[in-house]
Amino acid sequence: MKITETIEQVRQLVKAVRVQNKRIGFVPTMGALHIGHISLIETAVKQCGFVVVSIFVNPTQFSPSEDFDKYPRPVEKDLEICEKNGVDIVFKPDVQELYRSGNLTWVTVEKLTDSLCGRFRPDHFRGVATVCAKLFNIVGPDKAYFGQKDAQQAIVIKQMVADLNMPLEIVVCPTVRQPNGLAVSSRNKYLTEEQKKAAALIYKSLQRCQQMIEAGITNSSQILTEMHNILEEPGTIEIEYISVVDAENLQELKKITGKILVAVAVKIGSARLIDNILVDTGKQ
Amino acid sequence: MKITETIEQVRQLVKAVRVQNKRIGFVPTMGALHIGHISLIETAVKQCGFVVVSIFVNPTQFSPSEDFDKYPRPVEKDLEICEKNGVDIVFKPDVQELYRSGNLTWVTVEKLTDSLCGRFRPDHFRGVATVCAKLFNIVGPDKAYFGQKDAQQAIVIKQMVADLNMPLEIVVCPTVRQPNGLAVSSRNKYLTEEQKKAAALIYKSLQRCQQMIEAGITNSSQILTEMHNILEEPGTIEIEYISVVDAENLQELKKITGKILVAVAVKIGSARLIDNILVDTGKQ
Repeated sequence: MKITETIEQVRQLVKAVRVQNKRIGFVPTMGALHIGHISLIETAVKQCGFVVVSIFVNPTQFSPSEDFDKYPRPVEKDLEICEKNGVDIVFKPDVQELYRSGNLTWVTVEKLTDSLCGRFRPDHFRGVATVCAKLFNIVGPDKAYFGQKDAQQAIVIKQMVADLNMPLEIVVCPTVRQPNGLAVSSRNKYLTEEQKKAAALIYKSLQRCQQMIEAGITNSSQILTEMHNILEEPGTIEIEYISVVDAENLQELKKITGKILVAVAVKIGSARLIDNILVDTGKQ
Repeated sequence: MKITETIEQVRQLVKAVRVQNKRIGFVPTMGALHIGHISLIETAVKQCGFVVVSIFVNPTQFSPSEDFDKYPRPVEKDLEICEKNGVDIVFKPDVQELYRSGNLTWVTVEKLTDSLCGRFRPDHFRGVATVCAKLFNIVGPDKAYFGQKDAQQAIVIKQMVADLNMPLEIVVCPTVRQPNGLAVSSRNKYLTEEQKKAAALIYKSLQRCQQMIEAGITNSSQILTEMHNILEEPGTIEIEYISVVDAENLQELKKITGKILVAVAVKIGSARLIDNILVDTGKQ
């Protein structure tokens, strides 16, 4: 496994592989790798002859009040995980390498970024789209892997790739969960044991939602009330949003029909946690 | 020479050439090719083993009040010019091929697009940057060629390529002029013979500016007054702007120093015409 911090070197390394006609897989991460990332890497290794992982805590997707500085950066452990799981190159630039001074260019995806997390994290998805465009241009992958846990991110990146005719395919992999249902996230590190128990209610509320839809309930507000009740029960969860939206355009739905995304964002202690489920009602 | 209207086919054709290790040159145009475009194509042919020209009148860089519908589209003549000048592929998609329905993604370059033409053509450079990003992603060139006549466009595209780490080089070629000094432009077709004579004053005013700078004049307003006088003399030229700006950041300069760009935009009859000169005062 090669480890590099420079754009120039990652380009050279990938170029040498591309002429061998190998498929290049890419897993962009912010490090603090967990079993969710490992499942992305495993899928990439299975589907591609060569796998690049980037580790970069991207400042442009954090607002000033967010956790950029304290975001975990366990570099040695991350490299060990990459090595063990068959990664060929780890690209871990510093901020100066990736954002030259005087950066003026942004990639924005309209509409899809107005709802859900976009309402609470202004400029977050502009930062995500821009850094992904940069990383795709540097690495030049055939496929890039994202997790379903960050559902809105995956949809925004897919839209960007299609709209800008980027020559790669976006693969979205299922959310990986702890035995109690909690979606794995680098931010779970911020939770106490007690808070982890409360956090398990996020997925419990999503499962209850799924049951209600399967039982034929089509009134969103009825489902949202039930989910609010579940999450508010312990008194330690601050709900940012619970939304039932169209799975393609992310617009709020009053009546549940077609393919829907049910998404939750909460704060527990200092951690902001998100989760979601996709439900296909089979109806148009 | 191959002519194609589909993204899929241009990708396949270029891919077959890339494995032969040929350098790929790209000249994006809106058609109505003239000797300015021909000089870009000639440079591309000289520097690259394979040359792609795109012909696409890009709707997203025109405002509703501009000349998108009446912009000249002499397709047969354009193809003849490409064939004669050694172009390998002409890519001429229609609007539906390049902008899929429901496009939501834009590339914006801040600050550089606030001055000069950006003040008078809102969203113009957003359209230019976005379509260039798309075309670069489709064609995958090593070098792309732009004319110095559209100075602000060339600077914006260079900034985008650097900021987004796009893997290509932007080559800017000198402005090509008629014997009377008028910069060649597809929009010169809108001019009567009388108006062409008046239009020659644009370059005359720029030459006068250069003389004044060479004579040691460093006060921008003195130079701008002189240029206004030259352009206002026939009474048929409507000045949109005359600006003396820093050649790198495009900010207005009161005192002339360093590398400067002097840029002019005027309306004559129904034609909007632009021109510029670069002057290096040799001073910091």
